[in-house]
Amino acid sequence: MEESDIRRLVTLSIVTNMAREKKGYYVPAAASGRHVHLCRADAAKLFGTGYELKISRMLSQPGQYACEEKIALAGPKGRIEGVRVLGPERKETQVEISLTDSFKLGIEPVLRMSGNIEGTPGCTLIGPAGDVKLDKGVIVAARHLHISDEEAAAFGLKNGDIVGAKKKGERETVFGNILVRAGREHSLELHIDTDEANAAAIKNGDLLELIK
Amino acid sequence: MEESDIRRLVTLSIVTNMAREKKGYYVPAAASGRHVHLCRADAAKLFGTGYELKISRMLSQPGQYACEEKIALAGPKGRIEGVRVLGPERKETQVEISLTDSFKLGIEPVLRMSGNIEGTPGCTLIGPAGDVKLDKGVIVAARHLHISDEEAAAFGLKNGDIVGAKKKGERETVFGNILVRAGREHSLELHIDTDEANAAAIKNGDLLELIK
Repeated sequence: MEESDIRRLVTLSIVTNMAREKKGYYVPAAASGRHVHLCRADAAKLFGTGYELKISRMLSQPGQYACEEKIALAGPKGRIEGVRVLGPERKETQVEISLTDSFKLGIEPVLRMSGNIEGTPGCTLIGPAGDVKLDKGVIVAARHLHISDEEAAAFGLKNGDIVGAKKKGERETVFGNILVRAGREHSLELHIDTDEANAAAIKNGDLLELIK
Repeated sequence: MEESDIRRLVTLSIVTNMAREKKGYYVPAAASGRHVHLCRADAAKLFGTGYELKISRMLSQPGQYACEEKIALAGPKGRIEGVRVLGPERKETQVEISLTDSFKLGIEPVLRMSGNIEGTPGCTLIGPAGDVKLDKGVIVAARHLHISDEEAAAFGLKNGDIVGAKKKGERETVFGNILVRAGREHSLELHIDTDEANAAAIKNGDLLELIK
């Protein structure tokens, strides 16, 4: 286990205990950089038939990992290199970018929760073995709070709640409209994108005050 | 006068009247993209001795304009092309970038109000006639609200006040720590950078609710 993982576990224990004892409600934040989830067929087109994605490091959410593989994205106005593939593979390919990225690519930004890609724009994925032209699947991820069932009980939250979170400091910011995603496959973490993190000068692991 | 200028004047009239009649407090927002203010000597190094910057379009703040000229910025980790020069020339050269830009350039981001550049990092400016190696002057601009004396009276604000502003919508966001800059050289507009605009899905001219 890496030092950062240990720090995260200690933080989770502390903030969950504080919540349980009603001493305060704080959640660690993490900025998701642009990334892509691939379906089996698209992974094969991009990296070759039978190719297996390689795990680079495990992420905070149970079972999720960053892969060693990167691809490029192309839209009508531009191209972005070095976009990380996340695993495991999914039923449908999904690209998550920031609004800043959407302007660079020339793609109409559509704000969605992960997994909800009907009616979203597409783009071209470029891998070492070939390209994939997506008809849909490009989203700007909506803010959300991952939380386990046990943590949700401590925080008095349930799946589907809408909450806010406040970052103090020079760039004090209160984010609203944060969807709570509670369940066994979640672990306490506020997920925002790089625009949101930079707007509030948030570094990964910073604690934000939960506003219920 | 362009259509956008007329729309802005109409908006200012409406929101100032609303404020005067205490019916609500709304301010138009504008995102400042990365840009540079040049001193005479640096303009000469970048564009040639005796070169006069050309006005491309007037900006919302009295006497301020975007120039036709663009330069490149370079830092330890990267380079950004096509950075707009703003006029008129100033006593000291100042570069305003976003946090996103600072990571690309590899420059430690320092949040400052415009004009306060002591102790800030430098970078290299690259123009058609030569380069300038700045020792200081690169800032991430702190949020601020420009407001004329007349508008400030209507809004019940004075120079130096700290306020907040709320953007409603899917990416509901409340920005805190906004410095009020009141005076005759100002005109009502909330200035944020591109990270902040994108984090809240703000388009130029969007009205935010002022929080006093």
